[in-house]
Amino acid sequence: MYPEPESVTRVTTLGAGPIGGGWAAHFLARGYDVTAWIHDDSERDALNAVIDTAWISLTALGLAPGASRGRLTVTTDLAAAVREAQFIQESAPERLEIKQALYARLCQLAPRACVIASSTSGLTMSQIQRDCMTPQRTVIGHPFNPPYLLPLVEVVGGKGTEKAAVDWAAAFYRVAGKVPLVLKKEIPGFVATRLQEALWREALHMVANGEATPDDIDIALMNGPAPRMAAQGQCMAFHVACGEGGMATNLDQFGPALKWPWTRLEAPELTQELRDRMVEGCNAIAAGRHFTDMAAQRDREIVAVLNAIRAARQ
Amino acid sequence: MYPEPESVTRVTTLGAGPIGGGWAAHFLARGYDVTAWIHDDSERDALNAVIDTAWISLTALGLAPGASRGRLTVTTDLAAAVREAQFIQESAPERLEIKQALYARLCQLAPRACVIASSTSGLTMSQIQRDCMTPQRTVIGHPFNPPYLLPLVEVVGGKGTEKAAVDWAAAFYRVAGKVPLVLKKEIPGFVATRLQEALWREALHMVANGEATPDDIDIALMNGPAPRMAAQGQCMAFHVACGEGGMATNLDQFGPALKWPWTRLEAPELTQELRDRMVEGCNAIAAGRHFTDMAAQRDREIVAVLNAIRAARQ
Repeated sequence: MYPEPESVTRVTTLGAGPIGGGWAAHFLARGYDVTAWIHDDSERDALNAVIDTAWISLTALGLAPGASRGRLTVTTDLAAAVREAQFIQESAPERLEIKQALYARLCQLAPRACVIASSTSGLTMSQIQRDCMTPQRTVIGHPFNPPYLLPLVEVVGGKGTEKAAVDWAAAFYRVAGKVPLVLKKEIPGFVATRLQEALWREALHMVANGEATPDDIDIALMNGPAPRMAAQGQCMAFHVACGEGGMATNLDQFGPALKWPWTRLEAPELTQELRDRMVEGCNAIAAGRHFTDMAAQRDREIVAVLNAIRAARQ
Repeated sequence: MYPEPESVTRVTTLGAGPIGGGWAAHFLARGYDVTAWIHDDSERDALNAVIDTAWISLTALGLAPGASRGRLTVTTDLAAAVREAQFIQESAPERLEIKQALYARLCQLAPRACVIASSTSGLTMSQIQRDCMTPQRTVIGHPFNPPYLLPLVEVVGGKGTEKAAVDWAAAFYRVAGKVPLVLKKEIPGFVATRLQEALWREALHMVANGEATPDDIDIALMNGPAPRMAAQGQCMAFHVACGEGGMATNLDQFGPALKWPWTRLEAPELTQELRDRMVEGCNAIAAGRHFTDMAAQRDREIVAVLNAIRAARQ
């Protein structure tokens, strides 16, 4: 029922803020016709300013053939904005009553075969879709700030969402140059924000206790875990660092460290089941590659990151 | 009493593992004469293998004038290794009794003006230096894996360490091409590992609860927070994302989110004092720069990181 993701040529974005404007810029840069709905005309300048900023980076990353800011239409008419939409990315204010009212209208106005995705970071689609006639095609499509630059989009439905809509959204985001992550469950904060929030709360604890300043926190991150994490996630970082033994060695050897006071966060019990999930998950990512090859690739990418940042600072 | 950090030409590294070998490679690449002490001759091949691997990346980052692997001396004679050392980087096995015995000997054998730094991630210098004659010059100098690539070195003394030794080590690491972070307190896990550990424990919770696989975790990190965090730490990421209001807006507006179940980690109470420390800390880092300039610089660096990783994967 949904169109082929590759056949989509028109996208509608809702919202004039950094997220809504960032999405409009992203879709323009990938060569789509974009209709951007804004709440009222006073938001036009703000929207253009976001796109101005984003366009510099998007150009540096490489525009798709035919991509043009001339393919943007801005309107305050919601019905006109969504009447022929093939995909809608909603980035309205983060207030439940606003989103619920908006989705009730969107489900009446937009073609049934058009998936509607919300950029919300704090609400669930089960809440947002409450008053929709057609909740089946409503999903979360949560980007990471700045949305025109970071590839991640977390995709998950609500109770009334059909699986086909989630799968379609993930496939479409991939065609549109993003890296979708389909979540297993509708959890508060999704995956990426939960990881970031854990780190953030520990950072606040350290500042509260006089153990570190904000400057210390940022220096530690930028010069320690972050350049590696951009090349290799934390699971594979441990897997590869443990050589032949991989994640199994990490958990069997350093498992007791989960009880150590290395953060204020309590670790889960390291059950056999959790151990096996971690080990099997890392083996699946490695897909037969030898750890020395993965370490060499990690090093090439860290070198590239460090050299790139150094050059960008000069 | 300690030499000028710029005058150091000879460094002794202790240990043949990935950390000890990584340090030897780093110092060679920065143009030092390096004496690497290994426990016995059977470790010689392992040490060389680590340096072989590291040298590829160090060459790609750029060697210092005169840097040469020919300036490496490997020995199993501890007294000979440290007799004329100007700085010692110790990366012996992570067992307290081994380190305590080693430091007792090092303090007898090494010149008094030679600072001795430990790569330990899990022990404190107050524990390690217990049996030293001259604990004043013993410090933690904790690198991040891989130590030949990631710039961070966390520096902190133990109860018997003098401030001059901590300051000297930080100054020397900076001269030697690292980014030192002098810690305010001797806390378990130091700063960077605590931040990473909080994130890691939340990741394990999500895998234990069937909310994410290891692959999901890594995809989320690599395509979400990490490329930005390599350019901008989490404090400044929030400060800049909140525009004119900066960190004050972040905490005043999103402070209640610290109570939300966005991670299993409990946040500290957001007292006025903690709020002010965060705000003042971020203002100090910004040093008068406008948020739009900082956002533009962030974007340039994220673009560079994304393009660099893409190129390194092709």
